[in-house]
Amino acid sequence: MNITVVGSVGLDTITTPLGKVEDALGGSAGHFAVTASNFAPVHLVAVVGEDFPKEHLELFKARGIDVRGLQIVPGRTFRWTGYYSTDFHTRETLETQLNVFEGFDPVLPEDCRQTPLVFLANIHPRLQLKVLEQVDRPRLVLGDTMNFWIESDREGLLEVIKKLDVFLLSDSEVEELCETHDLMKAARQLLEMGPDRVIIKKGPHGALMVSQTDVFSVPAFSDVKVVDPTGAGDSFAGGFFGSIARYQDFTDLGFRRAVAFGCVMGAFNVEGFSLDRTRDLEMTEILQRYENLRQLTVY
Amino acid sequence: MNITVVGSVGLDTITTPLGKVEDALGGSAGHFAVTASNFAPVHLVAVVGEDFPKEHLELFKARGIDVRGLQIVPGRTFRWTGYYSTDFHTRETLETQLNVFEGFDPVLPEDCRQTPLVFLANIHPRLQLKVLEQVDRPRLVLGDTMNFWIESDREGLLEVIKKLDVFLLSDSEVEELCETHDLMKAARQLLEMGPDRVIIKKGPHGALMVSQTDVFSVPAFSDVKVVDPTGAGDSFAGGFFGSIARYQDFTDLGFRRAVAFGCVMGAFNVEGFSLDRTRDLEMTEILQRYENLRQLTVY
Repeated sequence: MNITVVGSVGLDTITTPLGKVEDALGGSAGHFAVTASNFAPVHLVAVVGEDFPKEHLELFKARGIDVRGLQIVPGRTFRWTGYYSTDFHTRETLETQLNVFEGFDPVLPEDCRQTPLVFLANIHPRLQLKVLEQVDRPRLVLGDTMNFWIESDREGLLEVIKKLDVFLLSDSEVEELCETHDLMKAARQLLEMGPDRVIIKKGPHGALMVSQTDVFSVPAFSDVKVVDPTGAGDSFAGGFFGSIARYQDFTDLGFRRAVAFGCVMGAFNVEGFSLDRTRDLEMTEILQRYENLRQLTVY
Repeated sequence: MNITVVGSVGLDTITTPLGKVEDALGGSAGHFAVTASNFAPVHLVAVVGEDFPKEHLELFKARGIDVRGLQIVPGRTFRWTGYYSTDFHTRETLETQLNVFEGFDPVLPEDCRQTPLVFLANIHPRLQLKVLEQVDRPRLVLGDTMNFWIESDREGLLEVIKKLDVFLLSDSEVEELCETHDLMKAARQLLEMGPDRVIIKKGPHGALMVSQTDVFSVPAFSDVKVVDPTGAGDSFAGGFFGSIARYQDFTDLGFRRAVAFGCVMGAFNVEGFSLDRTRDLEMTEILQRYENLRQLTVY
């Protein structure tokens, strides 16, 4: 089953206690596409500037990612500069340059409009709605967001949430959106707004999935040497949606397994800078870690 | 298998978003003893003043708890006054009156000195060491502590940790003691200090158990209507040690199940003020919630 993702592709300059990278490949759709490509074919819809390094484009192609929807326009590529404190306890954004991303107008290639799985990565809710106008009754629409949109376009975001099948967000986003620290209460509130399922990413505490009929909790993978957490949430989405695409199991159990794959891929992501760990994985490694994660919780 | 617990018994005045109680039965050993008494016989060693209500003493006795080690001395009982903010996100201590607890000198009744399971609840490390001098090669010593002792008697606490089989503490205590936010790193550091197992209570995020050979993660029970979180950690200890006493399974799997019982009993505890929920439970209710917790994580 194919996945279309619409989001950002950018160049990140990141400092962590373990090192620094400059202009490394990143962005919500960048992380998602490469991670999900371990599981299924991905169509990438995003925008970059003319300065976007050829090698990154080649990486996408080498991973079998369809880049016909990746617009290359005059100007500079989206850039983000961030800093993580000791123990990765806090993250600080030092600079955000929207550049060509500011004028992004997502256009899906004609034959992507029937893609069964659509991921609206973290972009302006207005653009997420624009994507939804272009797709033809997808099997499943997954949506993400960020605190910035909760603050600056809550109304637009609520419009998007109405149309999602699965809403994926972080605990801090949930708390801001629902104005409560009680995640179960918040999840039930979000289910009232439209989605069939809400998945809350809790970083080092794993993830929680709530639907009308099911509650599932999974811890984070414990044995992880964190190098760079950037993109962990998008890699989670990539593992989650990738496994839905691969196994096509839309039961509660299928979604539970997908959430576990999300945790697995998030854990791989943080072990290297940029996409270093998610770009060259073997399925055997992924399945081994999936089983190790499962062993962590059985009794 | 019998359990001896040494800790505090006190009277709590607690305000939460859902109400207020005054001079309600509490204390680390109070919560532990009542919770654990659902599973196994408990010997309680603590001190109260002459003002300690008879009804509380009767409650202990009705639960089959041996109170010969509960000293009743001239003076007022230990009192704690606390306040929880909206959503229980923060807790504030408004007043602590040590009263008779200040001069507490734990003495184990002669026939309790061979008890196979000994729980050193949160008291001064010096007193914890004094208890250990009185016991005769117990099968398992479980120890708890609090931030206060980490700050005021780190050296004494390190002496205690050396002698523990299982060290139980909260995430915030781990972070303060090991000076890291990385719980796995911290747990491994603590294992070097003496204990065979470290169990980290993560409140709404469940618990993590680490030994030389095993890592186990369990989420908190999700469907809980929190009324009063006071004593949740001690009830966790009660469920954990209670189930060890009841099932006598000292394998990794036995300890995993014990941690799950800990989560279950912690969840019951927070659903009522004081000991309201843990004092009248049926084993069928406990097992039902244990199974519900297990269902939360399987895939």
